[in-house]
Amino acid sequence: MPAEPPSHLTPEEFRAAGHATIDWIVDYLAGIEGQPVSPGVQPGQVRASLPDTVPETGEPFADLLADVERLIAPGITQWQHPGFYGYFPGNSSPPAVLGELLSAGFGVQGMLWSTSPACTELESHVLDLLIDLCGLPDRFRSDGPGGGVIQDSASSASLCAVLAARDRAGGAAALPDLRVYTSSQSHSSIEKDVLVAGFGADQLRSIDTDDDYAMDPVALRVAVEADVAAGLIPCLVVATVGTTSSGAFDPLPEIAEVATAAGAWLHVDAAWAGSAAVCPEYRGMLAGLEHADSYVFNPHKWLLTNFDCSAFFIADRKPLLNSLSVLPEYLRNTVSDSGDVIDYRDWQVPLGRRFRSLKLWFVLRSYGVEGLRAHIRHHVEAAERLTGRISSNPRLRLAAPVSLALLCFSHVDGDAAGEELLAALNATGEVLLTHTRLSDRHVLRVAIGGSRTTSDHVDRLADLLDELA
Amino acid sequence: MPAEPPSHLTPEEFRAAGHATIDWIVDYLAGIEGQPVSPGVQPGQVRASLPDTVPETGEPFADLLADVERLIAPGITQWQHPGFYGYFPGNSSPPAVLGELLSAGFGVQGMLWSTSPACTELESHVLDLLIDLCGLPDRFRSDGPGGGVIQDSASSASLCAVLAARDRAGGAAALPDLRVYTSSQSHSSIEKDVLVAGFGADQLRSIDTDDDYAMDPVALRVAVEADVAAGLIPCLVVATVGTTSSGAFDPLPEIAEVATAAGAWLHVDAAWAGSAAVCPEYRGMLAGLEHADSYVFNPHKWLLTNFDCSAFFIADRKPLLNSLSVLPEYLRNTVSDSGDVIDYRDWQVPLGRRFRSLKLWFVLRSYGVEGLRAHIRHHVEAAERLTGRISSNPRLRLAAPVSLALLCFSHVDGDAAGEELLAALNATGEVLLTHTRLSDRHVLRVAIGGSRTTSDHVDRLADLLDELA
Repeated sequence: MPAEPPSHLTPEEFRAAGHATIDWIVDYLAGIEGQPVSPGVQPGQVRASLPDTVPETGEPFADLLADVERLIAPGITQWQHPGFYGYFPGNSSPPAVLGELLSAGFGVQGMLWSTSPACTELESHVLDLLIDLCGLPDRFRSDGPGGGVIQDSASSASLCAVLAARDRAGGAAALPDLRVYTSSQSHSSIEKDVLVAGFGADQLRSIDTDDDYAMDPVALRVAVEADVAAGLIPCLVVATVGTTSSGAFDPLPEIAEVATAAGAWLHVDAAWAGSAAVCPEYRGMLAGLEHADSYVFNPHKWLLTNFDCSAFFIADRKPLLNSLSVLPEYLRNTVSDSGDVIDYRDWQVPLGRRFRSLKLWFVLRSYGVEGLRAHIRHHVEAAERLTGRISSNPRLRLAAPVSLALLCFSHVDGDAAGEELLAALNATGEVLLTHTRLSDRHVLRVAIGGSRTTSDHVDRLADLLDELA
Repeated sequence: MPAEPPSHLTPEEFRAAGHATIDWIVDYLAGIEGQPVSPGVQPGQVRASLPDTVPETGEPFADLLADVERLIAPGITQWQHPGFYGYFPGNSSPPAVLGELLSAGFGVQGMLWSTSPACTELESHVLDLLIDLCGLPDRFRSDGPGGGVIQDSASSASLCAVLAARDRAGGAAALPDLRVYTSSQSHSSIEKDVLVAGFGADQLRSIDTDDDYAMDPVALRVAVEADVAAGLIPCLVVATVGTTSSGAFDPLPEIAEVATAAGAWLHVDAAWAGSAAVCPEYRGMLAGLEHADSYVFNPHKWLLTNFDCSAFFIADRKPLLNSLSVLPEYLRNTVSDSGDVIDYRDWQVPLGRRFRSLKLWFVLRSYGVEGLRAHIRHHVEAAERLTGRISSNPRLRLAAPVSLALLCFSHVDGDAAGEELLAALNATGEVLLTHTRLSDRHVLRVAIGGSRTTSDHVDRLADLLDELA
């Protein structure tokens, strides 16, 4: 006599629980502006409140949702609050949330074309749509030798670039002689990726920047030429369009020239700024991208699509597949063997993959070209207004050129005053800002770009600055 | 005059669209058994049907959902169909789907404790609950030097083990001398992870297996001792509990002895079989795990939790943090500096991370200990019945010992007959099986474990086998 299967929710119970969850989210988001951005909990406080065993028998769904309301929501940092200006925005939108829900409902694995053809084909399709939408080079299209793929994060996408570049230049056998170049302002993930790939820390050259924190292409050329003269192999240059600290744009044409002359892979990280390319007027920052071997930007930062959705493009997929394709018998199938399809497992480190293109497709279609441009433009214009307010405040000083919707400023009284101002702003509960250091000074950052952030919210931040600076 | 922000769905539109999406999923899953498991589409067919531009203005949500029904669903391989026996199961359940939905609704980043305390603390908590639930060693608890973390996949978790082991043994400087050991039956992700980490293919030793496809610990010892004698450094042994092809259990106590004697890291990959440890009667396979440095199993395979949810445990977090912690100024914060909290960004390769513990918490509480055990036991018992049916079929022959709910068998007439049988079974549309090779013979695999698969469905598969073999 077989054991009984577990008791699942019936379809009608699932429906009711689903509607209740949707209602909870809609109400939570509708009321989010009334909540403090930061939760104000102490380490260990949330955990101490949680039931400390797995129950012997199942609990009703309503109890779970009640505990989310009572125990979890008060311990959340509200990334979807319109006053969230920390780090970079982590966008979300109703169509993206529902695309994510459908992905969970389908519950498929997109590792191979054959394990869900629509999962693979929609992904290729949507990434080609991004090429049109953002005016990206045609060499990244999936109907040529290159193509696009969704990764969980720019860290993971850049790791793929590091691996392809490493192996194209000789792989493990040549590894001690390989060198990688990026600016001192590039994201920490580049250093992490290089270390993951087996390089020593000294094999990553940190290139100086100019006064505006953009990579100095002359310094790059000097470093590359010195290494070549020493018999070393420049395998990869990583340029950043929109650095994390201040949003600086590295000069791609000059960098590409150096990389090309040295035979090095050029990877361009526009994780945050790349979304702005939906507007033709901001595409100048990407001039020179047609020389890049790979490119990444994150619709999950500033293009209304829930994390995780990092769009990674490659001009030639062969080196990537050479690095990442390991084919055991149990994954072989006729269609893959024919070479007629893309198997995205070979375009990333993990084997398994979610159906992430649904949410991006929903966002593109729900907002349309006009809606996506309005989203970016509204924030850039709000940043311009805030820039005016900060410029006219005698206690504050812009610390770097304003980049799209990212502002950096410091307090004229020095680091301690800046730290106090940051603490005072965040203590209001109305806003959350984070900091960085530029030219060894404490700097406050305002990253405008939240899905619900409007110019009215930014004006309120300007008032708080006047009040507290 | 600022640009207008984009037009988002109003709360009431979001609610209506959300309810419609829930209804669609509930109806889709309720009717899934009437659909063929495999979609029967040709390469390019789905993509050719998709609208080929991003619209200028937004489209109503109802149109999106209609296109999912019309264009996407017919191109899906139905991993949630009860007749899906391919690869390993990819479980899903109503509470997991709704936990994923809530995670999307919150839209937070769990990279640091401070970027959402509840996201981090619920994760540590739920992984400690898994230790109780599965009888895992206490050394993996997060209140000691070790701890647990959710990764997207076992590939990524095992990569973390490779990196920690590599760097503990000397890192990049020692890399050419380091050696890694795993059986010839271990998952392809181990080879991929080792290559990602900068090792050459020849630095991975493929250890022979016994007649049941489990690692031969004597062969391991011989390989390790030969390398040590040659001045090389064994840095990592990867053992598998439940291999992908046939579900073999590597003998952990003997392997641990060799690894410990050599000072090598021991990583245990129980990606699929690990879920069975919710039942005390199956925990024997994990004897010896108390000597492991790290352990991974995937609740997203066989524990009713949607992908991605890979549970990774480590006995000592320090080597992992040494490998993966890169701290730029813009991520610094008082609480992290105090050392009182876990920042999970340092426990994984990517920086960003979703709130994945919600769905696992929902599953544990919705099913309870009894429900989770019933889920596993029902499938194991169904596998026993199917084993009887296959054993009594003169045209079929078991190709390996039945492991939990995984069966491997071949056709007595040889590989071509086995391939034909596989094609005929899959052509019914009622089931999907995949294949592997064992001892250089074509083998059909039946991985029982789908969230909706009951012993009645397995009996139907047995009937099909009788009919078609």
